[in-house]
Amino acid sequence: MTNLPTTDRSWPTAGASSDLGALRAKVPLVHCITNVVVTNFTANVLLAIGASPAMVIAEEEVEFFATIASALLINVGTVTHVEAPAMLRAAKAAQAAGTPWVLDPVAVGALAYRTELVQQLLEFGPAIIRGNGSEIGALAGGEGGKGADSTQGSDAALEAGIDVARRTGAVVAISGATDYITDGQQVATVSGGDVLMTRITGTGCSLGATMAAFAAVCGSPLDAAVSASAVFAQAAERGLKQSHGPGTLAPAFLDNLASIEG
Amino acid sequence: MTNLPTTDRSWPTAGASSDLGALRAKVPLVHCITNVVVTNFTANVLLAIGASPAMVIAEEEVEFFATIASALLINVGTVTHVEAPAMLRAAKAAQAAGTPWVLDPVAVGALAYRTELVQQLLEFGPAIIRGNGSEIGALAGGEGGKGADSTQGSDAALEAGIDVARRTGAVVAISGATDYITDGQQVATVSGGDVLMTRITGTGCSLGATMAAFAAVCGSPLDAAVSASAVFAQAAERGLKQSHGPGTLAPAFLDNLASIEG
Amino acid sequence: MTNLPTTDRSWPTAGASSDLGALRAKVPLVHCITNVVVTNFTANVLLAIGASPAMVIAEEEVEFFATIASALLINVGTVTHVEAPAMLRAAKAAQAAGTPWVLDPVAVGALAYRTELVQQLLEFGPAIIRGNGSEIGALAGGEGGKGADSTQGSDAALEAGIDVARRTGAVVAISGATDYITDGQQVATVSGGDVLMTRITGTGCSLGATMAAFAAVCGSPLDAAVSASAVFAQAAERGLKQSHGPGTLAPAFLDNLASIEG
Repeated sequence: MTNLPTTDRSWPTAGASSDLGALRAKVPLVHCITNVVVTNFTANVLLAIGASPAMVIAEEEVEFFATIASALLINVGTVTHVEAPAMLRAAKAAQAAGTPWVLDPVAVGALAYRTELVQQLLEFGPAIIRGNGSEIGALAGGEGGKGADSTQGSDAALEAGIDVARRTGAVVAISGATDYITDGQQVATVSGGDVLMTRITGTGCSLGATMAAFAAVCGSPLDAAVSASAVFAQAAERGLKQSHGPGTLAPAFLDNLASIEG
Repeated sequence: MTNLPTTDRSWPTAGASSDLGALRAKVPLVHCITNVVVTNFTANVLLAIGASPAMVIAEEEVEFFATIASALLINVGTVTHVEAPAMLRAAKAAQAAGTPWVLDPVAVGALAYRTELVQQLLEFGPAIIRGNGSEIGALAGGEGGKGADSTQGSDAALEAGIDVARRTGAVVAISGATDYITDGQQVATVSGGDVLMTRITGTGCSLGATMAAFAAVCGSPLDAAVSASAVFAQAAERGLKQSHGPGTLAPAFLDNLASIEG
Repeated sequence: MTNLPTTDRSWPTAGASSDLGALRAKVPLVHCITNVVVTNFTANVLLAIGASPAMVIAEEEVEFFATIASALLINVGTVTHVEAPAMLRAAKAAQAAGTPWVLDPVAVGALAYRTELVQQLLEFGPAIIRGNGSEIGALAGGEGGKGADSTQGSDAALEAGIDVARRTGAVVAISGATDYITDGQQVATVSGGDVLMTRITGTGCSLGATMAAFAAVCGSPLDAAVSASAVFAQAAERGLKQSHGPGTLAPAFLDNLASIEG
C-alpha cells in the first residue's frame, strides 16, 4: 500500500510500556481546548492514564497556560466564534514556547468555517495531527466526511496522511480498524481495539488528548502517537471482555487505562 | 381524559421494531444543538441506538449542516446569546430543506429569554415538540415549571398538548410515568421506563434526540415519537434489572439500547 | 496545627444523616453555573443525592433564576467572557435575594483573568468557598497551583483557610485526603474517600454543588459543608468496594449517593 518502511507496533511493545511509565512518573499537565461533547470523557481518560488534564478555554487565559502546560490539545469539534480565537492564540503560544501540541481537525473539509480555522492552526506547527480517514483525506485536498464519523477507511487514507505529514511536518495519525501513524518517512501500524469503540463518543477525541500527554514524555511525536494508540487499543481489548455493550465498555475501558502496566 | 382515539403503543409493537431496523439500516445523521449538560449522554444514546450524532453549533456552520443532516434536534436547556442565533438559523434552514426537526423547549415558561426564543423557533415548523408536562403546559399558555424537572403530571398536560399540536402542526410528546404523544387528532400512550430514569440527567433530552433519529426513517412524526419512546422505555426497563442505582443504570440503559432487537 | 477547636465530623454523624433526610424531603432546586467538563456529572450527583439541578447560564436568565433557586453554585473552571458576566449577575442577585451560594474558585491564583473575576465574586458574599489547598492558599495571598489539581496539601492550607474565612465571612472547605472546613472560629474535619476519587474528574466540583444543596436545608453553612463532605466521603468509600478502577467507581459512587440512608 506504501513503499515506506512499515512496522507493526501494536501492544505489547517495549516502547509503549516504558513511555507509559515515563508518563506516570511525570504526570504531564495537558491543556485541552476540546469540544463540549467529550470534555468529561477526555478528562477522565487523561486522569486514568496518569496525566493531569486542564480545560482552560478563555481567550484571556490560553496563551499563558499553553506556555506552562506540558502539552496542548486543540479539537475543533464544536468550535464557535468564542473558542476559535482562543485556539489560535493557544497554538501560537505553544509553538513559541516549544509546547508540543496535537490538532484534532474534527469534520474538516465538511464545513467551511472550521476548514479555514484548521488551515490557520496548521501554521503553528502541530506535533501531531489525529483524525479519521475522511478528515486526513480532506486535509490532503480531498472531500471531507459529513461529521465525526469517518466515511473513508484508514487504509485508503494512508497516502493522504503521508502527503499531509510531508507538507506540514507533523506526524499524522489515522484512526480506524488499524491505526496508521506516519511522519512521512515511515509508517507504524497499531491494531486492536474494536468496532464497538466507535459506538462510544469521544474515543477518538480522547486518543488525541492522550497523544498530547505522551508527547510530553516521548522522544519523538511518532513515538508519542504510537504509544498512545497502542495503550488505547489494548485497554479497549481488555475492556471489551469485561463489558456487555457500549454503556459498560466506557467505564471498563477507563479501568483498564488505569491498570495497564507501564 | 380525552375524547380523541387513544392507543397503547408500548413495547413490544411491530411498528417500533421495524422502525428500529430501518434506523439501523440508514444510520441517520442527527444534527444536535443541545445543552452542555447532556451532550455526551445524547451522543452515546444516538450511537447506541444506531444513529450518527453530530454536534455542530457554530452560527457559521449550522445552516449548511441542518440541510445535509437526516434530522435536527434543538434543545434550549443551556442556551445563551452564543447558541440562540445558531438555533434560529438551523431551524429555518431545516424547514427550507425539509429536514425534520425536534424542539425540546426545556424550562419554557419559567424564563422569559428562552420563552421568547422558543416562540420564534416554533415559526419554523418543528415536526415534534418533546417536553415534560410543565413545559407543554407553558406552551399552551399555562405557567411553566422552575427548571428541567416537571411540576405537572403528563396526564394533566395532555389537553395542553392536544392544543399545542393543533396550533403548531407539530406532534407533541409529553414525557412522564406514561408518555403521551399526539398529533391533535389521536393519542398514543407508551408506558414502561421508571421513575428512576428521572434520577439520571439527560434521559428526556436524549429521548428528544432519538425522536429526531426516528423522524429520519418513519412515515410520520407521530410514529417517530412513538417508536423512540417505546424503545427508550423498554431499554430502561431492561437496564433497571441489571443495575443497582442511577449510576449503574446509565451504562446498562446504553447497553440495552444497543442490543434491543430491531 | 491550629489553636481553634477542632472536631472530627466524618460519617456516621447524626447531623449529616438528618441533614440528608431534610434535603431529600425538600428536593432543593440548585442553580449551577459550572464548568463544561463536569456539568453532566454534577447534575447526576445532585439527582442521586435527592436535589434538583438546573444549569441556567444565560446572562439574560441568571438573575431571576438565582432568586427563585434554593441555592446557587458558581464554579469558574472553564469560564470565558460569555459566562463571567452571568456569574457576577447571578451572585449579586443571590446575595440580594438571600439565596445561599457556593463559590468554587478553580485554579484561582494560577491565571489572572479568573483571579480577578473571583475577587469580584467575593464581594457578593458566598456562604461557602470550596477549593483544594492551592486554591485556598491563593485566595489568602499565596501562589496558586497550575490547574485543577492541587499542589498543596489540605493540612498546610488550613491556616490560609481560616484567614480567608475571617476575611470574607464565608465558610471555607478545603478538599484533600482529609477535608477541613472552617468558619474562622472552629474547624471540622472529614476523612474517608480515597485518593482514587482524584482519578475521576468533577468529584471536587460536584462536592461544591452538593454543599449548595445542603446549604438550602442546613442551619448553617458550616453544617452544610460538613454534611456534604461526610456524605460524599462515605459514598466514595462504599463505591470503592464495588468497583475495579476509576471508570467503574464513578457509577458505583452515584449508586451509593442515592442509597445512603438519610
